Amino acid sequence: MPEHRVAVVGAAGFGGALAARICCHHPSLALTALTARSDAGRRHDELYPRYRVPLEMEEFDADRVAERADCALVAYPHKAAASAVRALRDRGLKVVDLSADFRLDRERYEHWYQPHEAPELLDEAVYGLPEAHREEIREAELVAGPGCNSTAALLALLPLRELIADAVVDIKAGVSGAGREATAETHFVSAIDNVNPYKTEGHRHVAELEQELPGVSFSFVAHLLPIDQGILASCYATTREPLTREAARELFASAYENEPFVEVVHEPPHTRDVRYSNRATVYVTVVGERVISFCAIDNLWKGAAGQAVQDLNLMLGLPEREGLE
Amino acid sequence: MPEHRVAVVGAAGFGGALAARICCHHPSLALTALTARSDAGRRHDELYPRYRVPLEMEEFDADRVAERADCALVAYPHKAAASAVRALRDRGLKVVDLSADFRLDRERYEHWYQPHEAPELLDEAVYGLPEAHREEIREAELVAGPGCNSTAALLALLPLRELIADAVVDIKAGVSGAGREATAETHFVSAIDNVNPYKTEGHRHVAELEQELPGVSFSFVAHLLPIDQGILASCYATTREPLTREAARELFASAYENEPFVEVVHEPPHTRDVRYSNRATVYVTVVGERVISFCAIDNLWKGAAGQAVQDLNLMLGLPEREGLE
Amino acid sequence: MPEHRVAVVGAAGFGGALAARICCHHPSLALTALTARSDAGRRHDELYPRYRVPLEMEEFDADRVAERADCALVAYPHKAAASAVRALRDRGLKVVDLSADFRLDRERYEHWYQPHEAPELLDEAVYGLPEAHREEIREAELVAGPGCNSTAALLALLPLRELIADAVVDIKAGVSGAGREATAETHFVSAIDNVNPYKTEGHRHVAELEQELPGVSFSFVAHLLPIDQGILASCYATTREPLTREAARELFASAYENEPFVEVVHEPPHTRDVRYSNRATVYVTVVGERVISFCAIDNLWKGAAGQAVQDLNLMLGLPEREGLE
Amino acid sequence: MPEHRVAVVGAAGFGGALAARICCHHPSLALTALTARSDAGRRHDELYPRYRVPLEMEEFDADRVAERADCALVAYPHKAAASAVRALRDRGLKVVDLSADFRLDRERYEHWYQPHEAPELLDEAVYGLPEAHREEIREAELVAGPGCNSTAALLALLPLRELIADAVVDIKAGVSGAGREATAETHFVSAIDNVNPYKTEGHRHVAELEQELPGVSFSFVAHLLPIDQGILASCYATTREPLTREAARELFASAYENEPFVEVVHEPPHTRDVRYSNRATVYVTVVGERVISFCAIDNLWKGAAGQAVQDLNLMLGLPEREGLE
Repeated sequence: MPEHRVAVVGAAGFGGALAARICCHHPSLALTALTARSDAGRRHDELYPRYRVPLEMEEFDADRVAERADCALVAYPHKAAASAVRALRDRGLKVVDLSADFRLDRERYEHWYQPHEAPELLDEAVYGLPEAHREEIREAELVAGPGCNSTAALLALLPLRELIADAVVDIKAGVSGAGREATAETHFVSAIDNVNPYKTEGHRHVAELEQELPGVSFSFVAHLLPIDQGILASCYATTREPLTREAARELFASAYENEPFVEVVHEPPHTRDVRYSNRATVYVTVVGERVISFCAIDNLWKGAAGQAVQDLNLMLGLPEREGLE
Repeated sequence: MPEHRVAVVGAAGFGGALAARICCHHPSLALTALTARSDAGRRHDELYPRYRVPLEMEEFDADRVAERADCALVAYPHKAAASAVRALRDRGLKVVDLSADFRLDRERYEHWYQPHEAPELLDEAVYGLPEAHREEIREAELVAGPGCNSTAALLALLPLRELIADAVVDIKAGVSGAGREATAETHFVSAIDNVNPYKTEGHRHVAELEQELPGVSFSFVAHLLPIDQGILASCYATTREPLTREAARELFASAYENEPFVEVVHEPPHTRDVRYSNRATVYVTVVGERVISFCAIDNLWKGAAGQAVQDLNLMLGLPEREGLE
Repeated sequence: MPEHRVAVVGAAGFGGALAARICCHHPSLALTALTARSDAGRRHDELYPRYRVPLEMEEFDADRVAERADCALVAYPHKAAASAVRALRDRGLKVVDLSADFRLDRERYEHWYQPHEAPELLDEAVYGLPEAHREEIREAELVAGPGCNSTAALLALLPLRELIADAVVDIKAGVSGAGREATAETHFVSAIDNVNPYKTEGHRHVAELEQELPGVSFSFVAHLLPIDQGILASCYATTREPLTREAARELFASAYENEPFVEVVHEPPHTRDVRYSNRATVYVTVVGERVISFCAIDNLWKGAAGQAVQDLNLMLGLPEREGLE
Repeated sequence: MPEHRVAVVGAAGFGGALAARICCHHPSLALTALTARSDAGRRHDELYPRYRVPLEMEEFDADRVAERADCALVAYPHKAAASAVRALRDRGLKVVDLSADFRLDRERYEHWYQPHEAPELLDEAVYGLPEAHREEIREAELVAGPGCNSTAALLALLPLRELIADAVVDIKAGVSGAGREATAETHFVSAIDNVNPYKTEGHRHVAELEQELPGVSFSFVAHLLPIDQGILASCYATTREPLTREAARELFASAYENEPFVEVVHEPPHTRDVRYSNRATVYVTVVGERVISFCAIDNLWKGAAGQAVQDLNLMLGLPEREGLE
């Protein structure tokens, strides 16, 4: 008997669609409402047959959502998300927001994005990376799901947090990260047989790294690859003091030994091995004076919808893995 | 009327096959002999129909090659290459070798590879990156074609050579770089929908960078992507003194303004745009204190066979672009 | 509490590996033994990390398997399969064989393959397509899993079985159908950006169609596509009497209305929508005088391992969908 | 010295862009004008860097085009094409039109498309398949470039034209055939890892087959594949009288022995082998009572822009292969 009624707001985009799929098949959640903007009125399984969610998506109406749900995953683009989140929080729902709107402090947010639509909520928002903030997430009523690139980079760097001064973060990301909108960049003929860097002069996800790992200087570049889902973060860190390969490996093993979704692997990670799962694989080595670490995730799972449900599980006191295996 | 008779030794592998294709359609070269090892006896266009080289590949016999050719491109794996090169040099042929055998000084070579098979030839060998050694290549009788990853990284870093202290080189490379051999790694089902780092504890191509850019400390990792041909080198350099973005761009523009195959571009490069061509596109920016530069090439063209023919053109006094456009 | 102990014989190939994964996570099965040939001694999750089967693969020994298991899925290549199946049947295990060895009557088998290694078992073997032989499968002790191409074609044609005289079957199949062996055909560089027909003068899977749909004349060609998993069968049938589009659609709807894994869809099917699932989507239309029907499956799921477990569920009296959703 | 001044009208789409590239590097043509609709004002090499056409695209103005060019390739969508063609013909230019507007007689056109915009030109238009209409093309002032699917199917069937009663034509086509517009279907995430049939109830290209091969009954279905460029037509023909495999092969060999771009091959064709070239490879076999033939082309080359230049070469009295190798 599902204990909790959940709504997915913005269920037509890639992240929200997967969130709907996970919630729909989750043993302790009842998926009671889906909303969409331009696709309102269509059934979810018409857009995403393989997810098998037999519900219609409606126009967003906070009152109607609040009547039917106790908690919500919001998967709107940033800025649009803040207003929806406020409306749902005003009606008492617990919310995990997948956008950037509640990830950053106000100053960082307004530097990288725009004036904030709901700044009064920033204080209660918790950054939803369980590997860094699990206990706060358990207590939270509003959680901000981390960016996909930030999730991968942070999982590759967190065990080093006390040690690093500087890190180059080179992200390789699949096309689904660019969203469902059909654009010149997401056209098959542009993306196949290609790799390219983008936003080379400043990618907003770096702000999350700077906030979570204060004091570290980052060089951050994302690259687009011809894969549908998957991110590999390759991180090249300079530590304040030399670290041996063995010490680095012990640090990682011990940091993640109880983590349900992070696996420290003994061979360089392949994104294919974590695809369509909430797992993250992390590998660390030391070559010369650099600590080089890698993290592979599925950008829509651990990088978005899967992690959001992991957060929701924590917020609701459910087993953290539930519905995610 | 072709002026020079050329042989391709090892024409069944990816690099040698393309070398044969380029030479076969080159206006000043007559392709007079092809050799192969396990594929001897087969016609080249049976293996590579799209290259349209209507010649049979024979067992390697240095005397027979020397009877028919004045110069040779050798596309054997390292170690096997050295013996073939010696046999051809003994018979007076000018040689461009595509293997690693003549790229490095003896110490570096024997550190990364194995005891050298033909060390007496190392003195006369010139490192075949025209953008760095054009005049020496013109005079050379033995040229060592640079590694594909090294070519991309060096083109991204050469204009900074006087300035950099340290560089992270993150390579993204297509599957053809792993060669024609069918292995678990090159199986379609392993490579599609995937990206992974490999040789994370030390890739031999770093030796070429260290030799060509002495004094720079490198962190170098290569990653395998689901594309057939293409390399993107993303380089994150720390300079001894700060450099503005404008200064960096001027440096690159001036370094490459007369280069026939290197184009400094104003948007981040896409490997798709240089695929199946001998072009390299290079982009540089400065973010914070790092100079970040990228180079996109086709690993089989500018990273192997195309560059080898560019070298041969120089050695023979032909126009550098001939046969390559 | 798992009720049945199952072994997977040949768990290192693509089909057997997935069979192991499904059995390992199946609520009523205990996966107690895995065997492999050249990969004996390795752990399954070392070869297939994403399947998360934490067992070692052993050399095949029928006695040891029989000690530990009540039933087995055999995923050897044809010919090798027959001997293993006999050894297991001699020891009383219920067997689903994924090879071709028990799919055909002896005459057809020996025409298309070679002398049969265990002909005395042919009488008890049931062709494991539940949509055609469900009741026989329930009673069977030896079931022959249908070929992947045959499964797709039969599901596209079965509702028409009383009506058709002739059918063109054009198969589009992913590379995993060619098996895990690394060959020139399965090399990434051969398969990407390509489509080609193969075995144009006679593909053995046609024998299954002829046996299951006697009296129909088939033209059958398979084509290799750059996808990992998936088959689309496009079937162009000539019926003995004209059929309207509506009548054809009713026929399909009624044929499959109670099938747990076959869905009659209202838009042309996409293999992506059934990928990594045991579902088959079927679409039928009539244009001019031809009935044109399509079936999309995942070749390793409904075309091999998934269907084998579906068969095993039936043989063991378990719910047919169990472990497959 | 280029002898003929050519314009490309609609140079921003995939077909027109390649037409511009071929004309730009063609020894007997001077590319003097490019037009585009929404991309007017942009340089061609900004949109298509790898084509290296350093010209700006302008708004279409028939007078300005006529001042600068003697002939034109028109690559507009159907309906828009007819008006542009009329304007250019009125000003005396020889035209090859790549749209469907002049391929069909009026009745067929208005059945499959819409009322014709320039019906008075239909009489002078020649169907631009050189293998069927070479002499008429030489004399023509207006040539209609065949559809990409039709080209592949016709090349697979033309040698049988006197013999066949019925043919199933199963087309496998790359995504570039859907055009440059970014849509749900052309989004990378929809197209990768997928194959699907489309327009199953009637594809307009069948009209060209019916017109060129009168008396034959066709079943025609096109399928979308995850490749950028390439079409494979698989044709299953029923002949009026039995044909042996040898006779079929002789028929094809003799039909195409002098064709500059059609090669009868002895192994089933791979689209990869003709990619980025104007070649077509054709293979025929006979199995049972069906003649099965295949043709592989690049849809943008032999299926569009390459064939259009081949037509133009004929119209201008130039060597047919010029600029196409």
